[in-house]
Amino acid sequence: MTQRIANFNPGPAALPLPVLEEIQQEFLDFRSSGMSILEISHRSKLFESVLNDAAERTKRLLKLDHRYQVLFLQGGASLQFCMVPMNLAIPGKPSAYVDTGTWASNAIKEARVLEKDVHVVASSQDREYTYIPSSIPVPPGASYLHITSNNTIRGTQWDRFPDAGDTPLVSDMSSDIFSRAFDPAPFGFIYAGAQKNAGPAGVTLVVIRNDLLERVPANLPTMLKYTTFAGKNSMYNTPPCFAVYVVRLVLKWIEETVGGLEKMENLNRRKAKLLYDYLDSQDFYRGTAEPGSRSLMNVTFRLPSEELEQKFIRESLAESLGGLKGHRSVGGCRASLYNAVGMEWVESLVSFMKRFVEKNG
Amino acid sequence: MTQRIANFNPGPAALPLPVLEEIQQEFLDFRSSGMSILEISHRSKLFESVLNDAAERTKRLLKLDHRYQVLFLQGGASLQFCMVPMNLAIPGKPSAYVDTGTWASNAIKEARVLEKDVHVVASSQDREYTYIPSSIPVPPGASYLHITSNNTIRGTQWDRFPDAGDTPLVSDMSSDIFSRAFDPAPFGFIYAGAQKNAGPAGVTLVVIRNDLLERVPANLPTMLKYTTFAGKNSMYNTPPCFAVYVVRLVLKWIEETVGGLEKMENLNRRKAKLLYDYLDSQDFYRGTAEPGSRSLMNVTFRLPSEELEQKFIRESLAESLGGLKGHRSVGGCRASLYNAVGMEWVESLVSFMKRFVEKNG
Repeated sequence: MTQRIANFNPGPAALPLPVLEEIQQEFLDFRSSGMSILEISHRSKLFESVLNDAAERTKRLLKLDHRYQVLFLQGGASLQFCMVPMNLAIPGKPSAYVDTGTWASNAIKEARVLEKDVHVVASSQDREYTYIPSSIPVPPGASYLHITSNNTIRGTQWDRFPDAGDTPLVSDMSSDIFSRAFDPAPFGFIYAGAQKNAGPAGVTLVVIRNDLLERVPANLPTMLKYTTFAGKNSMYNTPPCFAVYVVRLVLKWIEETVGGLEKMENLNRRKAKLLYDYLDSQDFYRGTAEPGSRSLMNVTFRLPSEELEQKFIRESLAESLGGLKGHRSVGGCRASLYNAVGMEWVESLVSFMKRFVEKNG
Repeated sequence: MTQRIANFNPGPAALPLPVLEEIQQEFLDFRSSGMSILEISHRSKLFESVLNDAAERTKRLLKLDHRYQVLFLQGGASLQFCMVPMNLAIPGKPSAYVDTGTWASNAIKEARVLEKDVHVVASSQDREYTYIPSSIPVPPGASYLHITSNNTIRGTQWDRFPDAGDTPLVSDMSSDIFSRAFDPAPFGFIYAGAQKNAGPAGVTLVVIRNDLLERVPANLPTMLKYTTFAGKNSMYNTPPCFAVYVVRLVLKWIEETVGGLEKMENLNRRKAKLLYDYLDSQDFYRGTAEPGSRSLMNVTFRLPSEELEQKFIRESLAESLGGLKGHRSVGGCRASLYNAVGMEWVESLVSFMKRFVEKNG
């Protein structure tokens, strides 16, 4: 009998148990093919239907119209940090970025390596990236405005996306895609490593508005051009088949078991509220993100000392609460409340936190 | 009860059944972590031990000494077609390539996109890539000599690797890595998409000799530099954890169940001999690769007509022999005999082929 833990990992992260069970059940013989999903050809109708269904579910969940394509790439969001400016920066026009910490900073760094005309139009570096800037001046004629919708390390998240007028928004949504409903209209390009809300590590979801494909320079290497993936339904070469297959199952779970993105968001808001309400009700634990910028996905907090934080992490694990250590670059504690994290796990966490205060407060 | 078929897919391809069963068995709770392998952190000791063991087994199997590092990347061999010249072509020095068909041709094309000084020093294009060239003149001072060790589409394979003197050999070994023993000393760089002999789609094995890391230009994007992966033990960002995990299990199977690369090669030679001997014994089927260049991995053959080929593929599938269709670019038939293909499957195939001739010859 499996003893599963409450998994608050920041990514790779918890996946829905019914999804894992379905994978396990059909692992040796996928849809009566006599082969594992790992063994079927990516050129087979069987796999093509998996990939197409994953793309269609993405389009339905994100309410993307016919102007958008869904692609499956490899290399994580980190590879997109260079592919975005390579493909989408228009020569002679500025590329605008908002710096909300590590991942946004890395995206900016890669655009600079490529010697693009990078404008950092807003930054929250002045207060250690604990908030989302509110004033976002976009330079006229910018190629795009790049934001990171959620910062897993600092526990901040854009509540409302900035108004960039006609400038297409480009967003790294690795840590909050499919966690809430939003209007896709201002977005020209969205990318997300799957390993938080959408599946396992090893596949990057890309949403591109068709008109942005016209920007792709002809002289880029084949595997670094979005047109290569768009023109071949993500199968110019062998895609990461298993990861795409798991993404499809996770999206099916969101649509058919949870009931869609609005319901998913509602659950996520309730989980986050439970934890933030508790944080606000006492003064042993201290939330690190500023209230208006708090992430629904990653709740970051500190204890009175690093010693107590280590004890907290050790003792929580002993009670089957896993993944509560903060990112190594900032320390502290963090509970990641992605889609597959159940309300009952958050209740167990708050209960543990209360008991920990009683003994150590 | 699972009805598995004899899987001759060209990749993704058959995996050893004991490996698939082990994955299935521990899928909900990896090593008593209370989490699936899909859900554990790539920064955990648990995952690090998986990745390190996969790298160490690669080093043992390929007899790599301390001068080599093993890395796990994403994007398939196709991404390496551009990363190799980006990283390893020395400015002002020629990059030498041998053109043995599709994959080699694509590697050449990407080096040219990057405006490297590409010298195609030998080619088998004159006879439709049905053989491996024997005379390989390497230009003095070349950055490297690039070869494709096995051509999955034309069914050709280098029997002995070319002597390039001090010039490091660079090889795409996607379709025959771990299928036979070879001396790694002439090689500076080896890459392989895992989805044929080493695991599932979604991870690219890279072997790099340390001195070649010194060539990597400083101004490349972070995710396109081999130094990024070498400096962070393949974990600059989230690696394709599940694919690495499966590769480890496949390598463990080669080492501990099969008994090493020499035994693996012996098995592979026996499987290929059975099929080639039969092809040579009759004249209904016609092998397409020239005898001295025949691949142990991909046996390509034609029937007297395309109509008969279609019938052959249809009827073989009805007898649970899968994946026998030739590559869409060349047509015909192909049996891929990768490591996990059992001798008994090849025996069934030859038996079917004989019966097919009796009815249609």
